[in-house]
Amino acid sequence: MRKLSTLILLIICTSTFAQEKSLAEKLGYSKTDKLLIVHADDIGMAHSENIATISALKNGIVNSTSIMMPCAWSTEVGKLIKDMPDLDIGIHITLTNEWHTYKYAPIASKSEVPGLVGPDGFMYKDCASVAQNASPEEVEKEMRAQIEAALKIGIKPSHLDSHMGCVFYGRPEYLASYIKLAQEYGIPAMLNGEIIDGVINPNPQIFKGIDVDNLILIDRVAIASPQLYDELGMEAFYTELLNDLKPGITVLLNHIAFDDAEMRAITTGFTHWHAKWRQDDYNFFTSQNAKDLIETNQIKLITWKEIGKVSK
Amino acid sequence: MRKLSTLILLIICTSTFAQEKSLAEKLGYSKTDKLLIVHADDIGMAHSENIATISALKNGIVNSTSIMMPCAWSTEVGKLIKDMPDLDIGIHITLTNEWHTYKYAPIASKSEVPGLVGPDGFMYKDCASVAQNASPEEVEKEMRAQIEAALKIGIKPSHLDSHMGCVFYGRPEYLASYIKLAQEYGIPAMLNGEIIDGVINPNPQIFKGIDVDNLILIDRVAIASPQLYDELGMEAFYTELLNDLKPGITVLLNHIAFDDAEMRAITTGFTHWHAKWRQDDYNFFTSQNAKDLIETNQIKLITWKEIGKVSK
Repeated sequence: MRKLSTLILLIICTSTFAQEKSLAEKLGYSKTDKLLIVHADDIGMAHSENIATISALKNGIVNSTSIMMPCAWSTEVGKLIKDMPDLDIGIHITLTNEWHTYKYAPIASKSEVPGLVGPDGFMYKDCASVAQNASPEEVEKEMRAQIEAALKIGIKPSHLDSHMGCVFYGRPEYLASYIKLAQEYGIPAMLNGEIIDGVINPNPQIFKGIDVDNLILIDRVAIASPQLYDELGMEAFYTELLNDLKPGITVLLNHIAFDDAEMRAITTGFTHWHAKWRQDDYNFFTSQNAKDLIETNQIKLITWKEIGKVSK
Repeated sequence: MRKLSTLILLIICTSTFAQEKSLAEKLGYSKTDKLLIVHADDIGMAHSENIATISALKNGIVNSTSIMMPCAWSTEVGKLIKDMPDLDIGIHITLTNEWHTYKYAPIASKSEVPGLVGPDGFMYKDCASVAQNASPEEVEKEMRAQIEAALKIGIKPSHLDSHMGCVFYGRPEYLASYIKLAQEYGIPAMLNGEIIDGVINPNPQIFKGIDVDNLILIDRVAIASPQLYDELGMEAFYTELLNDLKPGITVLLNHIAFDDAEMRAITTGFTHWHAKWRQDDYNFFTSQNAKDLIETNQIKLITWKEIGKVSK
């Protein structure tokens, strides 16, 4: 087996920005504290995703999630979280519908966001198609519609992030709208130094109205990759990750659902991010091993709500 | 137990229209033949509905179905029926979204059919709300969008019918559009004498462009009611129905899905038409008993495709 450290490719680089005080320090922690958000993406996508994610939030180490509002099951989340007033839940801005058999369209009126609607009447399958077809105005309109739809079902969003990263890897204007909307709604948007370096700094004109120097940046994003999944499996990957966690703020993204008939049908034709992948995530993040790793490595769990307080 | 015959309330009345030749005769059958379409409503609504309905079409006595195009799983149907070129499948015109946690919106752009969009951004829960809010123009636009969306996923519709009967029990103009669209696409629309008596004849102005005397009418629609389900159960109801079937054309509507996690979640809060109801339908319509009842009662199964041939 290849040495694990060389395989951890998707831990996106640490911010190189020397800020006066780190975000960790602003939150009241020391520079050496290992701070972690254990974040389940994709709640709202399916019933299976909803109940598994909520179980992992209640019984596991998952302490944050973000919702895909355009999907048929997002409304269920509003009902399922009624007894969880402290839940840390953001908006997983969704511009793509990658699945072959399970479909969703923009929340905004199709005639107002035609560039987000593929020839089949649903969202495009990938970020590149979104970037080719959707104007920045359309994307901003849809992002706003998703936030407003979440408010309507009783969700008080703690943050914004981006399904499949289309906001980061589409057109730079999408990112400007994402930051602008987060500021308008008074919540943080997930950002790190890589995005500053790769998208914002090369496009000063597009971001001219945004106070880039004072953006809230997390230190790193960690996520299982197909290669890691195939070569190591979830438990070994996450175990090594938590044992080697660096000081600063890491957001660990996962995707939690049950390996059941619904999720298998949704992920038909996918060799990764599929039902078994999501069940493996559920199994790890609700395991005693995960809890022990947090404790023995003296990792402190933090939430987007805490970050939100210093971002105002 | 109350006498069964008094309980069969929902066998909607036989057409009282004396036509020169009955539809059965036009199809080449005699007046005394017992002709039956065993029709599964609601395919496309959910994955569970899709796979159970297709199983009942392949292995049971179900021989026709109709699809709910606005739902997240309608696209899957296009893929699942690729090996069923002779399938009798129509469009189950869907103007309502009755479920509390599983949602869908019109296929037409929301800004073009605002009267079909409730305050939650999805379709209304009942036909009365549709009738109060949606103009005939909006309903016709959405009906057309549903037919066109079906064509786009490879479905060649054999007929039109109506989810929850909103086309029949909404505004009479909806019914006029439904008949007009069926004629435009060259397929029959499910209609019987009750609808002629109750909706068309009292509104001659609305139907003035339609050749009412030459409409294709089935003789009766049969469907399990909540009362019948509670008092008899599906097997006893359908057994009696098939043993007592009258000559002429009966459409027997059912709703087939599995009693699984997805269907239970969709039907949360419903005491009828729920997951168990749909599993009971599956169990009966794939049973040997059902096949035997067809044979011993000399019932002839016919399809909407056959009817479509004489309606042109």
